Order: sequence, then C-alpha cells, then structure tokens
Amino acid sequence: MNTKRNRMPADARKTAILEAASQLLAERPWEEVTVSGLLDAAGISKGGFYHHFTSREDVLAAVVLRLADDSIAAGQETLSRVGEDPVARFSTFLTETARWELSHAGKILAIVRMAMMEGNAPLFIKLGEESQRRCSPIIRGLIEDGASKSFFNVVDLDLTTELVMNIGRMRWPTFLKAQDIADGGDQEEAWRAISDRVRVEEALTNRLLGLQDRTVRFPPLREYRPLIDQDQDPA
Amino acid sequence: MNTKRNRMPADARKTAILEAASQLLAERPWEEVTVSGLLDAAGISKGGFYHHFTSREDVLAAVVLRLADDSIAAGQETLSRVGEDPVARFSTFLTETARWELSHAGKILAIVRMAMMEGNAPLFIKLGEESQRRCSPIIRGLIEDGASKSFFNVVDLDLTTELVMNIGRMRWPTFLKAQDIADGGDQEEAWRAISDRVRVEEALTNRLLGLQDRTVRFPPLREYRPLIDQDQDPA
Repeated sequence: MNTKRNRMPADARKTAILEAASQLLAERPWEEVTVSGLLDAAGISKGGFYHHFTSREDVLAAVVLRLADDSIAAGQETLSRVGEDPVARFSTFLTETARWELSHAGKILAIVRMAMMEGNAPLFIKLGEESQRRCSPIIRGLIEDGASKSFFNVVDLDLTTELVMNIGRMRWPTFLKAQDIADGGDQEEAWRAISDRVRVEEALTNRLLGLQDRTVRFPPLREYRPLIDQDQDPA
Repeated sequence: MNTKRNRMPADARKTAILEAASQLLAERPWEEVTVSGLLDAAGISKGGFYHHFTSREDVLAAVVLRLADDSIAAGQETLSRVGEDPVARFSTFLTETARWELSHAGKILAIVRMAMMEGNAPLFIKLGEESQRRCSPIIRGLIEDGASKSFFNVVDLDLTTELVMNIGRMRWPTFLKAQDIADGGDQEEAWRAISDRVRVEEALTNRLLGLQDRTVRFPPLREYRPLIDQDQDPA
C-alpha cells in the first residue's frame, strides 16, 4: 500500500485526478482512458477516486466544466484591469477567453471530437448548456453595461446574449474541421475556413450589438494560426 | 375480433394512430396516454400498432416531426402563390408557418411542456434538431435569394440561417410561460410577454438580414391573442 497516496488532502486528490484526465484526454481517445489508467497517472487509490467521482463519465463532465470555468476566469481576471469603456471591456472579455481557449486547443478539440460522435450528443448537449449557463451572466452584464451607456444598440438584452453565445458555440467544430483539412494536406483551405469563421463571428457579433464605427474585437487572426500549423503545441 | 380494424390499409392505419396520438396529446398529459388507449382511439389492433411503431415514445417522435413537416408545408404551399420579391417571400413563409403553428397551439404547447420536464430533454433536443434540419434548407434558400438580389445584406449565409432559426426556436417556451401567467390571472402581463417576444423576434430577424426600411413581417399581433384568451380553441 502506498502511504503517500493516502496522505494527499481530498481537494488536492480531486485536482490531481482532473489534471491527469485532462492530460490523458489530449494524448489519446477517451475510450482508451480507464479508471485504473487515471489512478496511475494521478497517483491516487481506488477509494480516493470513488470518493470524488462515480464514473469515467463523471470525470469527463468535471473536466469539461473546469475548462469552461477557467476560460471564463481568464476573461474576468483581465476585465478587472481595463477601464470603463464598454466596447473595450467586451472586446477584452471576448479576446481573453478566446486566447485562453486557443492555448488549450488540444484538449478542447479532443472534447469536441468526442461530442460529435454518435451517441455522445446527450451528455455534451447537457455540458454545453451548463457551460453557457455559467458564461451567460457575464456576457449579459457586459452587453447591459454597453447598452445602458448607449454604446451598444441592442434589440433585446436576453435574446442578444443568447445569440452572441450561439455564435461562439459553433466555433470549435469549425476549427476541428479545419484541422482535419490541414491534416489532409490543404493548409490553404484550412486557413480559409478558420479566418472566414473568425471574420464572420466578429461581424455578426458587432451587428447584434448595433456597432458600426467602433467594433468589438476578437484576438488578431495570427493567434489562430497554431490551430493548423504542424509544430503546434497540443497542450 | 373487429374485422373492420384489419381491413384498414397500412398507410391509413399509421395516419389514424398519429391523428389519435395528436388528439390525445392536446387533451391530457402524455404520461397518461397508453398504447391501448391509442389503439382504442385509433380503432387499430395491437399488431397493427407494432407494425408501424416500436413504442409510445416512437409515436410521440412521429407526431412532433409531423407537426414540423406540416408547418413547413403550410409555408411552402403559400410561397408558390406569391411573386418574386424576396422580402415578400420571406415574410410569407414566416407568417404562414407561424399562422399554422398558432392554429395548432394546443398540441404544440403540450409538446413544449413535455420537453421542459426533467429527463425529457435528450429526446426533444434530438427532435428539435431534426425539425431544424428539415426547415433549414428552405430558410437558407429564401435568405440566399434575397442576398443575391441585394435585398438582404447578410454577414454569412449559413450562420445567419442558423441564428434566424435559433430566434424562432425559443418562441414557444415563451408562449407557454405567458399562458401560465394568464392562467394565474394576469392577462395583461401575459400579453406583454407575448407581444414583446414577437416584436423582438421581428426586429432581430430584420437586423440579421440587414433590412431597415422595408422589413420582413410576422403575423399581426392580434393573431397571437388566442394563445391566452379564455375562449381559445385548444386544437
């Protein structure tokens, strides 16, 4: 018996399991990840595992929601350092969450690939809704702020929030498709798919916000380049 | 043995089951509808039923998709009688599908109520996606027509189609909520919820299409009134 395993505090144990799962997820298909593989990677006993999770699926759900929380936290953290201009604030939030996600593209693409598999949809639809529920109050707050100060001209706060989030939601399936195109050898077509998507998202978001001259911005295009470059970091 | 039951041709039998299910749905909670209740209402034998359907859930799915198909057909049928003006064509399709749905509000609200119940989401999300898949090519075609003739100014055809459908998708849950408010006695608040929703949908749809002076139109507000009026037809 490994005494070290039992000394780990409960919170650290849970974190270790999630870190290990998140790492394994970027390395191999989730179907190949077993509970005992997770235990080995995390240095956790079986009892320690079932204290926190009921199943592999339960771990996967926690990994997905942690990614959502971390991306939101990255955006919020930067918000505390920008001024009061609503256009700048919304741009910052969109840019920093997108940037955080791009720096974790390997994990996110692995999750999106799983979500697109036959039979997995119900779980991932539920997780997508839960992620949106966590992000929605922040997006809503940023839009409300801009609208109340007459920077944004929105038709309806709730429906605009929902549509802005819907625009973002389908970004990653497009990136996954682009990566498959790049893997097939057509870098140019893959890059077109990504840059078109980013341009369209930016334009539609600005249209929903009623912005014309000044616009909210996503990260500069070059930051999306690693999604299809050979030497990309699969983190 | 009822010989009349066995003489019914297969297609008519299937239609009879769907008609009966659709009728029962508007009258009582679906949990109270049994296979034998369906058989009695449709005048069908047990063998006849299982020739077409595997379960009650299977019947429910067919009822939902038939409603979607019928609503689309109502819109398309009218399209064949209007001219070539893209704004008029899109208005006609939106108006006639909405009008068809309003005249079947009892059934649709019963389905939406079921869809919102804990545990039912996976089935109804799948049915919602399937309904959207059927409607999407028509909406897309109407938008493409208007954009190619420079009546509409859209950022991106596919994403605009998706967002226009997203706007419509959440209309019925709002109507259901309004009906509950009306049942609670506050007709004024219920009517405000409905009229706000319709106004917002119209404004957002026009914004996505890049329309300003001429606008696409939904049915006139008064046609939504029966949703909350006491003497409404629950068909």
